[in-house]
Amino acid sequence: MTRIAACQLAPVPDDLAATAELTGDAVREAISEGADLVVLPALVTTGGVLSDPEAARAVAIAPGHGVFAAWAAACTARHGAVVVGGFCEAGDDGQLYNSAAVVDATGVRAVYRCAHLWDRERLVFAAGSAAPPVVETLHGRVGVVINYDLRFPEWTRTAALGGADVLAVPVAWPDAQPGEGGGPDGQLVAAATARLDRVAVVCADRSGPGWTGGSCVLSAGGQLLAAAGQGRSAAWADIDPEASRDKVVSGLSDLWLDRRPELYDRVTAPRS
Amino acid sequence: MTRIAACQLAPVPDDLAATAELTGDAVREAISEGADLVVLPALVTTGGVLSDPEAARAVAIAPGHGVFAAWAAACTARHGAVVVGGFCEAGDDGQLYNSAAVVDATGVRAVYRCAHLWDRERLVFAAGSAAPPVVETLHGRVGVVINYDLRFPEWTRTAALGGADVLAVPVAWPDAQPGEGGGPDGQLVAAATARLDRVAVVCADRSGPGWTGGSCVLSAGGQLLAAAGQGRSAAWADIDPEASRDKVVSGLSDLWLDRRPELYDRVTAPRS
Repeated sequence: MTRIAACQLAPVPDDLAATAELTGDAVREAISEGADLVVLPALVTTGGVLSDPEAARAVAIAPGHGVFAAWAAACTARHGAVVVGGFCEAGDDGQLYNSAAVVDATGVRAVYRCAHLWDRERLVFAAGSAAPPVVETLHGRVGVVINYDLRFPEWTRTAALGGADVLAVPVAWPDAQPGEGGGPDGQLVAAATARLDRVAVVCADRSGPGWTGGSCVLSAGGQLLAAAGQGRSAAWADIDPEASRDKVVSGLSDLWLDRRPELYDRVTAPRS
Repeated sequence: MTRIAACQLAPVPDDLAATAELTGDAVREAISEGADLVVLPALVTTGGVLSDPEAARAVAIAPGHGVFAAWAAACTARHGAVVVGGFCEAGDDGQLYNSAAVVDATGVRAVYRCAHLWDRERLVFAAGSAAPPVVETLHGRVGVVINYDLRFPEWTRTAALGGADVLAVPVAWPDAQPGEGGGPDGQLVAAATARLDRVAVVCADRSGPGWTGGSCVLSAGGQLLAAAGQGRSAAWADIDPEASRDKVVSGLSDLWLDRRPELYDRVTAPRS
C-alpha cells in the first residue's frame, strides 16, 4: 500500500523564502507521519495568483532551486518517499511555465509543464507540449498533470495509458466560481478521471481565502477516500498501486483492451 | 427548454409483442405528460440479457419494424417529440448489433450501433464502427451512445464535438457488480461526461430485479437534475440545449478552444 498525503498549503505571496520554509516543513512533517507520496498544490513555491508576467518572473525558479533540494532532503527520512509539487518555472528557453516537479531522495526526477492553462494563466505562462511524465517509484508509477489539465480526458488518458498507477495533480481551485471551480466540482472531475482511467488520483489544493480547500484522494474505482476541506492541512489515504494495473471491470471487459483507438483518431475539430 | 423523460422499463423476456406494447405505452404516456425527448433503456425491445446468439437472433429486428412505427405515431401527439431507445438489431449484413434508434413523428431518423460491447455482449453482437449520430431536432441536437460506450471518454467526446446538446444513453446497469455496475457508479460516469463535455446527459436504465434503476438526467454542468431509483417509472427534468453550446467555463477558458488535439493524436496503445 502507498500512503498518500495531499497537503493543503497557503503560500506566502511573493515571498519565496518563507514559502520554501512552509513547503519544506509540510513535506518533512508528512513524511515523518508516514507519507510515501506527498502532493503539494499548483504553483506552491510562490504566493499570489500570478496574473501578471512581471510578478511571475520575479518568483520563477529553475529545477535546480534549493526548494527542491529541501524536498529531496526530507525524502531521505523514509525509504522511497516521493514529493510532487507545483512551481513557477523559469524555463531554459526564457519562457515561464506552470510546472510540477517530481522529487525523491535522489533529487528532481521529472518536471512537467502544464499543457492546458486556466483562464488568465495564458497571459503569463507558455503551455507545455510534452506528455505527462510517469515516474517509476518504489510506491508505484506516479503520473503528473496540473490543475485545468484534469478537464481534458484525452490528457489524463495519456498519463494512464503511459502506465500511471496514481495521478498526482497539483491544483488551485478558486472558490469564486460556483459550479465551475473546485471543491465538490473539482472532486467530481477527479473521481471521474479515477473511474474512467482506473487510476488513483490525488489532488492537492491551496487552502485559505479564495480557495476551496478541495484536496482529495480517489481510489482507482473513483471512490472518494479522503477529502481535506477548509481548515484541514491534508487529506490522507492509503491506495494500492497494483489495483490500478488491473483494467478488467467485468468478466470479459477490460477498459484498455476494449478501447478502439482506430475510431478515436478521427476526432479533431469541434462542430461550430 | 427541453423536457426530458428517461423511462425505466422492464422488458418482457423473449416476448417482442408484449414489450412493444410496453414501450409504446411508455412513450405515449411520457409524451402526453409533456416530454419533448423520451429515452428508453438499452435493448428495450427485447427481454432477457441476450447472452446467447440464437436467442438474440430470435428477437432481433430491423429499423423497419412496427415498434418504431408505434413510437413515431406517439410522437405525433407533441410537436417535435423525439424518442431514443435501444433494440437488438438484425443488421442488413447478417450480423446482430446492440443498437439504438432515434425516432420522431417522421419515422426513424438515425440508428446507432454500440461500439463498445460490455462483457459477454461481444459473444452475441458485432461492434459498430460508425461515430455516434448527432440528430438535429426541434428540441436540440441529440447525440446517442449506448451503455458501456459511456466508459470511453474519447467516444462521448466524439458525440460532443459533433455538436450534441444532449447525449441520450440507453443503458442496462446490472446491480450484481458493486463498484462497477450502474446506479451511483453509472451516474458518476454520466455526471463526469456531462461536466467534461458540457453536454446534458440522459441515461435510461432497466428497472426490476437485476438492474439498478439508475435512470438519471444530468445538466451540462454535471449536476444531477433527476434520478429515478428503483420502483419509479421515469426520471424527469428540463434542460436548456443552448447551455450545452457555451463551452466557456471562465473568462478566457473555453473547453473546446483549449483542447490540444495535436498532442492527443499520439495516444494509441497502453503501456503493459
